[in-house]
Amino acid sequence: MKKNRRHALAWLMVALIALPLSAQQQFTLEDLNFGGKNYRNMIAKNRSLTWWGDQLLRLSADTCWKVNPVNGKEKVLFTRDAINKGTGLADDEQVTSLSYASFPYPDKPVAVLYNHNERMLVNFKTRKVEWRQERSVGAVAEEWNKNSRAMAFVMDDNLCITDAAGNTRQVTSDGSRDLVYGQSVHRNEFGIEGGLFWNPQGDRLAFYRMDQSMVTDYPLITVPELDDSLQVIATPAPEKYPMAGQTSHLVTVGVLGVATGDTVYLKAGDPTDRYFSNISWNPAGDIVYMMEGNRDQNVVDLVAYDAVTGNRMATLYHEAHPKYVEPQHPITFLPWDKEKFLLWSEKDGYNHLYLYDTSGRLVKQLTHGNWVVMDLLGFDTDRQAIIISANADSPIQQNLYRVDVATGQMTRIDEGGRGWHSGRLSTSGAWLIDNYQEPDVPRNIAIVDTRNNRQYRYFTAPDPWQGYTVPEYRCGTIKAADDSTDLYYRLVLPTDFDPAKKYPTVVYVYGGPHAHNVDARWHYASRSWETYMAQRGYVLFILDNRGSENRGRDFEQATFRHLGQVEMQDQMRGVDFLRTLSYVDTTRLGVHGWSFGGFMTISLMTNYPDVFKVGVAGGPVIDWKWYEVMYGERYMDTPQTNPEGYAQTSLLNKAADLKGRLQIIIGLNDPTVVPQHAYSFLKACIAAGTQPDFYVYPGQGHNMMGHQSVHLHERITRYFDDYLK
Amino acid sequence: MKKNRRHALAWLMVALIALPLSAQQQFTLEDLNFGGKNYRNMIAKNRSLTWWGDQLLRLSADTCWKVNPVNGKEKVLFTRDAINKGTGLADDEQVTSLSYASFPYPDKPVAVLYNHNERMLVNFKTRKVEWRQERSVGAVAEEWNKNSRAMAFVMDDNLCITDAAGNTRQVTSDGSRDLVYGQSVHRNEFGIEGGLFWNPQGDRLAFYRMDQSMVTDYPLITVPELDDSLQVIATPAPEKYPMAGQTSHLVTVGVLGVATGDTVYLKAGDPTDRYFSNISWNPAGDIVYMMEGNRDQNVVDLVAYDAVTGNRMATLYHEAHPKYVEPQHPITFLPWDKEKFLLWSEKDGYNHLYLYDTSGRLVKQLTHGNWVVMDLLGFDTDRQAIIISANADSPIQQNLYRVDVATGQMTRIDEGGRGWHSGRLSTSGAWLIDNYQEPDVPRNIAIVDTRNNRQYRYFTAPDPWQGYTVPEYRCGTIKAADDSTDLYYRLVLPTDFDPAKKYPTVVYVYGGPHAHNVDARWHYASRSWETYMAQRGYVLFILDNRGSENRGRDFEQATFRHLGQVEMQDQMRGVDFLRTLSYVDTTRLGVHGWSFGGFMTISLMTNYPDVFKVGVAGGPVIDWKWYEVMYGERYMDTPQTNPEGYAQTSLLNKAADLKGRLQIIIGLNDPTVVPQHAYSFLKACIAAGTQPDFYVYPGQGHNMMGHQSVHLHERITRYFDDYLK
Repeated sequence: MKKNRRHALAWLMVALIALPLSAQQQFTLEDLNFGGKNYRNMIAKNRSLTWWGDQLLRLSADTCWKVNPVNGKEKVLFTRDAINKGTGLADDEQVTSLSYASFPYPDKPVAVLYNHNERMLVNFKTRKVEWRQERSVGAVAEEWNKNSRAMAFVMDDNLCITDAAGNTRQVTSDGSRDLVYGQSVHRNEFGIEGGLFWNPQGDRLAFYRMDQSMVTDYPLITVPELDDSLQVIATPAPEKYPMAGQTSHLVTVGVLGVATGDTVYLKAGDPTDRYFSNISWNPAGDIVYMMEGNRDQNVVDLVAYDAVTGNRMATLYHEAHPKYVEPQHPITFLPWDKEKFLLWSEKDGYNHLYLYDTSGRLVKQLTHGNWVVMDLLGFDTDRQAIIISANADSPIQQNLYRVDVATGQMTRIDEGGRGWHSGRLSTSGAWLIDNYQEPDVPRNIAIVDTRNNRQYRYFTAPDPWQGYTVPEYRCGTIKAADDSTDLYYRLVLPTDFDPAKKYPTVVYVYGGPHAHNVDARWHYASRSWETYMAQRGYVLFILDNRGSENRGRDFEQATFRHLGQVEMQDQMRGVDFLRTLSYVDTTRLGVHGWSFGGFMTISLMTNYPDVFKVGVAGGPVIDWKWYEVMYGERYMDTPQTNPEGYAQTSLLNKAADLKGRLQIIIGLNDPTVVPQHAYSFLKACIAAGTQPDFYVYPGQGHNMMGHQSVHLHERITRYFDDYLK
Repeated sequence: MKKNRRHALAWLMVALIALPLSAQQQFTLEDLNFGGKNYRNMIAKNRSLTWWGDQLLRLSADTCWKVNPVNGKEKVLFTRDAINKGTGLADDEQVTSLSYASFPYPDKPVAVLYNHNERMLVNFKTRKVEWRQERSVGAVAEEWNKNSRAMAFVMDDNLCITDAAGNTRQVTSDGSRDLVYGQSVHRNEFGIEGGLFWNPQGDRLAFYRMDQSMVTDYPLITVPELDDSLQVIATPAPEKYPMAGQTSHLVTVGVLGVATGDTVYLKAGDPTDRYFSNISWNPAGDIVYMMEGNRDQNVVDLVAYDAVTGNRMATLYHEAHPKYVEPQHPITFLPWDKEKFLLWSEKDGYNHLYLYDTSGRLVKQLTHGNWVVMDLLGFDTDRQAIIISANADSPIQQNLYRVDVATGQMTRIDEGGRGWHSGRLSTSGAWLIDNYQEPDVPRNIAIVDTRNNRQYRYFTAPDPWQGYTVPEYRCGTIKAADDSTDLYYRLVLPTDFDPAKKYPTVVYVYGGPHAHNVDARWHYASRSWETYMAQRGYVLFILDNRGSENRGRDFEQATFRHLGQVEMQDQMRGVDFLRTLSYVDTTRLGVHGWSFGGFMTISLMTNYPDVFKVGVAGGPVIDWKWYEVMYGERYMDTPQTNPEGYAQTSLLNKAADLKGRLQIIIGLNDPTVVPQHAYSFLKACIAAGTQPDFYVYPGQGHNMMGHQSVHLHERITRYFDDYLK
């Protein structure tokens, strides 16, 4: 470790020497904003690392190195050139890059590599292509199984399988925009990220089938690209969008036997108004588990199905809550005991891991405390331990821990015990890559021996902002509007801060569930636009109100059925705090946020019209009755069952109260918060005689991609410059 | 006349006495803008007058008066109450208002009146309902013939007829959004205002049939009304929109014999890429005439068809021009000679009337000179004269003239010979209602004896702005960029004008064909927003550049194939003129316009980025290739035949040159300049890194209706206040 620290110092000195003698540089949005022309040079350098069993490997496009975890010494394992020469692959069949190489077989010198058209298993010792499989150009989803080497994919709306021998079979034929196979369902809520689920052996595939023929279309439109000479007129781009309280889709789960080609559907009963999520397999690969929730989202069951017959076998677990339950993780079997699995639940108030057996008996709660488990990284099978990430040391940190399953003893194993750590475990669980940031650390990587808790610094990123004038970032807590809960804030001070001056101040807000803004990453996770604004003479203030993530169930559920209200109360406590800061000009307060934060921005502008002078709201929800079923009803119930809550939170009813300058910005093709929200708010303001401003990014979705984000942030900045400065 | 002048003075004194003693009032947009809450009180009062033969009548909702044209004395002819009592109509059948009464039979004491469901012929002497006919609720077009009393209408996309006896027959059955019967075709270009054309006898009906199944849809969307609890999600509202150079619709003309029920289609040949316009009948009602133009719009033929067989009889007239010809008026037969008709043409450079006979022989050109005929008001049959409006006395006036057909002698017959006169002729042509404005006259009405050219003042509207601080309106001419053509401008000075000061100045512009902004109406036709801006301390400048109307063919056609270019050159001469005015701050120049004027605004902002600091462009054309076939190709030819012209005028190529502040405003449901224009310009600006502002009125079309126009003008004003003041 000490040696590595010296490495870091050496790096720093090189950077200092390389500095021009002129004054410190000023940032542009091309430097700071993702998509900016110089952005890649301004983020902390990283190393692409992976595991081959317990062997640490580093990857670049051209080279794969073996890395000694203790001293960081690297040795070339193979190069792309050598592979391409050795295999004798034709010019158009050569491996394109090693960056995406993977090493699924710990005991074989074989890498999964790709050329333009194929997935290949290449023996990097013999430099022979041991196996190859054509990839499906145009597949919208693709899952490969390392054991059977079969590939499942979705093409032209239908599910297809390519087996190890290269035979491709179309499994379904009635797929369409209305009938979706093998893709995410329930709009990616409930932890769903895909629709293809191999069993461990790769001989059975579970897959989603979603009938959305009964779901209304939202009429998005596509404006022709400027360089498209063939497309003259705009075209409809309808998006299936089930709004809160409206008819939703029907999901079923099929299981395909690869050898037989037969599909059986799990006999889960009528899918109307039900959610099927968190699909997983038993180790033997003949039982499918899934979480089954009701439309009200206050009850969930873990149910086991016979994968061969589709018959329902047992309900292993049942959870209910008067507000809502939201299973986000499939169960995971212990590698050393095929009868026991880990289950995630917030039932004690915080997200923790529980050990169950396959009869549905609770063996024990594995983690405890007023903190949450964030990720299950894997297992140390030999020693029967699990490796997790959690915020047990501080609500704004993410640390890595080893938990002994037998004793429940939990040991922090990351380097430094501060900051925000992301881990990647080796096959045996003996080693861990710890890639982390701290408030004053842009990025370090340590290799951890998880069994003796020793950390070896492998990489220390130089400060990417060396030579620039960087503002001060502060972090602290204030009390929520309940006078008891600690809320974390970040404060960014103007670059040439003078406490005797008074500065215009912008509150950046998100505020919604499943997200947070303040943590112990570099600069307390400050968004780079904050730095840009600080450079222009603004104070920035960011507060994670109740309703945001990682603080436990009750913290997040405080907002149930009246989104935005408790959040605003907490944000106003933030304003109270700003009033105590002599250098904050509270006559020049602005607010900015996107999505839920756009909703918060307009909520604050209209509920506190004398507090906030200027606001910029991106992709804002205006009325929750136009948001989609899954997320919307979880937090708000339905417009039919919670009319008061919908009325209270609807910004249509606040249009007349707009007083300051408000700019609303949307993507014309936003399929998440559809343009109807913003349009309807404009209608309400026009009727009420108030004057919001508005902008739209044609062809963009819920967020602006690529260089358009630079344009967007120039736009946002200009608005505050125009009216707040 | 003198007596009436005294009347006017009496009016004025009443108004002065009624004035509060406090200071002069300031205007609000609710006063000035149409749709404003006080707007109706702020426009010049009017009188609703009509003719029953040669008897002048005045109408209100409740009363119909006979008016003595010479002394203005009024006598009640009948009242609504008396009619309703006399006829004994049931409560739900009573006449609702007399405001829309008409008197089609000069020799009978009969009025056409309406109740909620019916058209009725009521004898106002006997107070009997002589005839009644149910109206068709939901009809999208309706034409009634006073001779046969048959009514033609379009319902549920199909043509229907109700005869005098009340029998209704559906004439077509295949009508749809794709196949349109009895409505305007060719997007109302070529003077087309409807699709149902009765012959004089009312026993045959010519009608349009438009097959637009092959025309692409523009995907407009409708956002639910805020008070619509049934409609949750936005819905598609596709609009058939043939863009320049693209496939257009097919129009044919049918003739229905009412007695037989048979329809024959005029045998005009393949309608592909042809325009059929200006449909009319011969006096005998058995020949249909129409103008037939080619897609290039540089050739037009007047063709006669046998209404019984549909056979083509003869081409009576042919006109061609290297740029374009644009017939806007059907032929009109002389009442005293069924073999001769009047034909309009610009062929000598100005719009004039020509007398032809039915063999197609030119009898003579009836009007001559470097001025244009604007309207044909009718005939004095006994004396064989025609009554027209024209700008023969000044390019910015519209005066009323009597033209003797035999001698061609033309006599101005309106009161005063200044200003802008609109006439309504009595049945015999002996009398004329002359409703007019002059630069300092809000509205006068004189009754004219057309045969001896005597005018009797009937009504003098009081100044509706009495008591308000009114700015000064000036009018004058400058030379166009060709250094020879006179262009008319209007200059509005700030309300508390001080020539020693320097004022921000806004150029309001339209600039396109078939329109003008400066004429000799009240305040030189100043738009009321100009007064609002003058009150806020702006100078307003409005110039009718080459390309605008009423100045003859070459003046208007100067812009052919490169719209906006000559117009900009002329507008920049306007800026040169402004530079000569010491009180104009040319460092604070703004520009505003709508539609073609929106196109001009962005053209000026991007072609002269250092001249114009702020612009507001409403419903702007961005690239003529996305404008519709009829108007677009007339002035620009097609993108295929005029690629240089389209490229030169496309504002997509100018997005990078935007420097000042530009706000673009559109109606989300604009079917005229579809939203794709504005969206694509935003795309181009985003790509180029320039920052226009944008606003949209959901549910609004090409112009903002009702009170939304007040909101719009508050918005436009604020933008100049924000960035130009």
